Amino acid sequence: MKAVANAVGLKQTALRDHFWTPYQELVTGTVLPYQEKILNDEIPEAEKSHALANFRIAAGMEEGEFYGMVFQDSDVAKWLEAAAYSLSVHPDAELERRVDEVISIVEKAQQPDGYLDTYFIIKEPEHRWKNLLEGHELYCMGHMMEAAAAYYEATGKTSLLGVAERMTDQIASVFGEGKRFGIPGHEEVEVGLMRMYAVTGQEKYRDLAAYFVNARGTRPEFYVQERDARDFQVFGMDPNERDYNQTYAPVREQTEARGHAVRAVYLYRAMADVAAALGDESLYRACKVLWNDIVTKKMYVTGAIGACGNLESFSKAYDLPPDRAYAETCAQVGMVFWAKSMLDIEARGEYADVMELCLYNSTISGMQLDGKHFFYVNPLEVNPGFSGEIFGMRHVLPERPGWYQCACCPPNLARMILSLGKYCWSESADTIYAHLMIGQKASLSLADIEVESAYPWEGSVSYKVTPKKDASFTLAIHIPGYVGAKDLNVTCSGERQKPAIKDGYLYLNRTWEAGDEVSLQFPLKVRRLYASARVLAAAGQTALMRGPIVYCFEGVDNGGQLQALALPRSAQIRTVKETEGILKGCVSLAMTGLRDEDEEALYRDEPPACREAALKAIPYCLWGNRGLNQMRVWIREQR
Amino acid sequence: MKAVANAVGLKQTALRDHFWTPYQELVTGTVLPYQEKILNDEIPEAEKSHALANFRIAAGMEEGEFYGMVFQDSDVAKWLEAAAYSLSVHPDAELERRVDEVISIVEKAQQPDGYLDTYFIIKEPEHRWKNLLEGHELYCMGHMMEAAAAYYEATGKTSLLGVAERMTDQIASVFGEGKRFGIPGHEEVEVGLMRMYAVTGQEKYRDLAAYFVNARGTRPEFYVQERDARDFQVFGMDPNERDYNQTYAPVREQTEARGHAVRAVYLYRAMADVAAALGDESLYRACKVLWNDIVTKKMYVTGAIGACGNLESFSKAYDLPPDRAYAETCAQVGMVFWAKSMLDIEARGEYADVMELCLYNSTISGMQLDGKHFFYVNPLEVNPGFSGEIFGMRHVLPERPGWYQCACCPPNLARMILSLGKYCWSESADTIYAHLMIGQKASLSLADIEVESAYPWEGSVSYKVTPKKDASFTLAIHIPGYVGAKDLNVTCSGERQKPAIKDGYLYLNRTWEAGDEVSLQFPLKVRRLYASARVLAAAGQTALMRGPIVYCFEGVDNGGQLQALALPRSAQIRTVKETEGILKGCVSLAMTGLRDEDEEALYRDEPPACREAALKAIPYCLWGNRGLNQMRVWIREQR
Repeated sequence: MKAVANAVGLKQTALRDHFWTPYQELVTGTVLPYQEKILNDEIPEAEKSHALANFRIAAGMEEGEFYGMVFQDSDVAKWLEAAAYSLSVHPDAELERRVDEVISIVEKAQQPDGYLDTYFIIKEPEHRWKNLLEGHELYCMGHMMEAAAAYYEATGKTSLLGVAERMTDQIASVFGEGKRFGIPGHEEVEVGLMRMYAVTGQEKYRDLAAYFVNARGTRPEFYVQERDARDFQVFGMDPNERDYNQTYAPVREQTEARGHAVRAVYLYRAMADVAAALGDESLYRACKVLWNDIVTKKMYVTGAIGACGNLESFSKAYDLPPDRAYAETCAQVGMVFWAKSMLDIEARGEYADVMELCLYNSTISGMQLDGKHFFYVNPLEVNPGFSGEIFGMRHVLPERPGWYQCACCPPNLARMILSLGKYCWSESADTIYAHLMIGQKASLSLADIEVESAYPWEGSVSYKVTPKKDASFTLAIHIPGYVGAKDLNVTCSGERQKPAIKDGYLYLNRTWEAGDEVSLQFPLKVRRLYASARVLAAAGQTALMRGPIVYCFEGVDNGGQLQALALPRSAQIRTVKETEGILKGCVSLAMTGLRDEDEEALYRDEPPACREAALKAIPYCLWGNRGLNQMRVWIREQR
Repeated sequence: MKAVANAVGLKQTALRDHFWTPYQELVTGTVLPYQEKILNDEIPEAEKSHALANFRIAAGMEEGEFYGMVFQDSDVAKWLEAAAYSLSVHPDAELERRVDEVISIVEKAQQPDGYLDTYFIIKEPEHRWKNLLEGHELYCMGHMMEAAAAYYEATGKTSLLGVAERMTDQIASVFGEGKRFGIPGHEEVEVGLMRMYAVTGQEKYRDLAAYFVNARGTRPEFYVQERDARDFQVFGMDPNERDYNQTYAPVREQTEARGHAVRAVYLYRAMADVAAALGDESLYRACKVLWNDIVTKKMYVTGAIGACGNLESFSKAYDLPPDRAYAETCAQVGMVFWAKSMLDIEARGEYADVMELCLYNSTISGMQLDGKHFFYVNPLEVNPGFSGEIFGMRHVLPERPGWYQCACCPPNLARMILSLGKYCWSESADTIYAHLMIGQKASLSLADIEVESAYPWEGSVSYKVTPKKDASFTLAIHIPGYVGAKDLNVTCSGERQKPAIKDGYLYLNRTWEAGDEVSLQFPLKVRRLYASARVLAAAGQTALMRGPIVYCFEGVDNGGQLQALALPRSAQIRTVKETEGILKGCVSLAMTGLRDEDEEALYRDEPPACREAALKAIPYCLWGNRGLNQMRVWIREQR
């Protein structure tokens, strides 16, 4: 097996997109500075972070106790990674100075042997590497590796890369073939090692990543051995919870996505990256089986995954309750990352479709437009008074809270949004793959490409190509799965092309001339989605999509009691270009539906009176920006 | 305030009803003997009970340790009570001999000062009366009082009554005005004391019951004081969980049914009984407010209450999820008891309607027709593969398990079914109130009445009246709330009467002649019930009823995937008299509905294909008697 293409560096792209550029500006202008203040405990109304203080204490720069989650270090690492991307897309000498300052603290906190985890350095030095199940050392270090690779790519500076290299050497000195047996409880170090491999080319990092991937789920069981050998008390998961951390079987034998959804997709991404790097067909095959299990049985219509409110985990196939969803922001971010790794192996439209679905819906739904409030959980239905309060839905908040202690999601969103350029392209010796229709200038090996895009509100995208050395290559453009071949109008410098679509990609193979412009036009019809009857909670209901955008109904637009609404199958749905308020620039949907009158009587034997009602649906990603109110994606359909 | 009527003793009635007599025979023939064996640990495949062994150990008759729940004694008490009713309805010298044997063990276990709780006698004698919050001493003793009253009424024997009198004297010596402040964590002793008052006429029992009722929810808070004074560790509820045990306010100020549903309705029944005995208007007013809160906001269409799967409690108003219901059998049994106490105060149809609804649906649904498997939880929807397995529905079992350790529900059902005669009548100096249409011979103070009933399958009931001393009195017959006045045909000895209905009761005031026969005829139409739009989970759906019977759809009759079914609003529903199998004798419903085809694809943009499907609905109380399969009460309605 040979991966079809390589990843493209973030610095090769410069986004200029009417949809995404404002998100990037929100992150660079608000989210990152806000998070930086949080890490420094400078936001009094936010929950105490202490994350940077932990590093300073570990570095001997100040006195104090460790405070925070055992994985508090990862907040700093994820901020560093996002800041690195920020510097890539938006150079800022002052930010770079502050990042260097943080890096110098991190450097000082690192132990002489390369070990770096402030919880264990400060609090339990004697328990280093003795609680891989819940200790999160490898998780935190994995994030630091990702940050190091990103910062090196952004600035060429090797300070943090050096930290990461010493850290990886420390890990490699302890774990691996012929050394200690061990696997991380929360997968992430595998991804970090593969990023280190990508920027340094050192095969030892790739091989250690492969070791961790391949050791997972083997017998005898590591976590059981670890527990039996441990001479101190720990809290957390039972080592026998084999689903939770994906140890129920060796990874190649796993056929179902189970357990903690974020851990799972981080593992699957690493599996794909290792498979690509080593040409490991059986590992890629396992990825495909797991991918298939998720997208055909365990994914919400918004792209969200991990339905179960207990243990943040995948539920059983087809259990996709809209009002009890877990659907953690981080899980969808991980899905985007994994999808891109799959695309680097094989350009298949299904991967790009899922990546797009998550990007435009269930990832960014995690963030308020003020950049200061975030959802951990992304439900498809909230009912104030019940959501967040009733047993079984206490985790489903009807409004985004402020920064919280377990702050994994906000920085994860920040790094995804800022590194979006990386997810737009893959490139091989003779082919450029364009996965997303996002406006930008990209400087690739084969060509410079300028993308103008009216997506996702209109089906209109153009690619202006300026070839570099060899003008003969293929441009492969992902065509979203919902676009019918006969609806697609392709021109190249004004000349109508006959689309040759294979596996969701339009292949244009020609000798390019500077200024050649490929233009795609396709209608964005409003689609009604229907779930399989096996999805209990969606029976008799429909969800609305247009392009990649999933819509939802909010109380503020529809007068409350959304459960009393129905949409006739025959109802025409009109698109409305919004011109004001938080919806400005986006397309909302207007339609005439039906509303059951509210009756106070708990039960009666007369059917409820019903009247016509003007209904409005807005993009799901924007819900919850206009105060506390009801929301639902699925609406009853009246045939 | 004066209660309208007195209760009627069980021995005054002899049921001979085509619906209920088989249930009584099932209980006398199977449930009670089976439970007796369980209490004696003679059923190897059942969970160990040890309940009688605990009494023998406490009595010094054998060596051993206490085993079981802290309230294990109540299993013996409830069995004794049910056995007493059994002897009332079906004399059996051999059973009576065995009951006397058990009573003699109970007598021996009782301490010289009257105290009787085997857990504390055997295990923690030093903690007697020190953990009223969770210790369940008063709960267990309350049940023993009910048993004692029942056995005395059944046999005239005073053995157990003596135990109960010494027990109540012990309680009265410790608690009450001018003595120790205290209230039971699980209400029940109040009811037990009121039963003692009923059979002995001793006001001290009534007054102690009133003390416990009135002390509840007062400040300073008893449970907090108790905890602060306690010098040992206990497990269980936080005393600050004031909703859980109905201490959030003094009982007269409580306006919402909150907390543990069984505890709540036991309290409310006691409040009604105390209100009736003392003519306490404010207490009855509080009962009415709480009644209203439940029946207008917190009751399932089956009559079930206590929707919340956490802490077996009432949920918020209108939160009535069919698939996550708790709806404990005991809570509905308690609702029947409370309804009867309310009826003894005021003959209002709404009380009798709810009593009937619970009796014919959500109480007996708790028992398999083999008499050996029982539901604790009575959901309105089960989906095998999800119910009992998914987070938030682990408590919702799709099949009745065998006897279980916390065996409160089976004996509660047994005593309700055997004492049903008591719930049929109230009587005042000049009026007989007939609450239920159950075939029987009743020997009341004013008259003997022979009831012939085709209910609940047909709307046809007759009352043959033989007056006693004074032939001039009123017969007041409850007319179910769903019967329209114009649909009711009443004859008295063949002569058409003009129905005079007030508050749900038909009042027939005349001078009766021996053999006068009142005959009621009314059509039992199939009704479609609709829930308020505020009940999120029932929006767009309908439930079927005929007479007092709620219907449900089971997979075995309807080909599975019940969520894919819809019932057109225009569909005719036919009644079918069943002649075979477990449904024999009952009326099922047949109709032509619609079924969405199963599609494997998780999502698609074509509406599901739909075809006509023959549907069958069976009485809800009979579900789960034909193997593991799907069930639902609410079905999507197609307009």
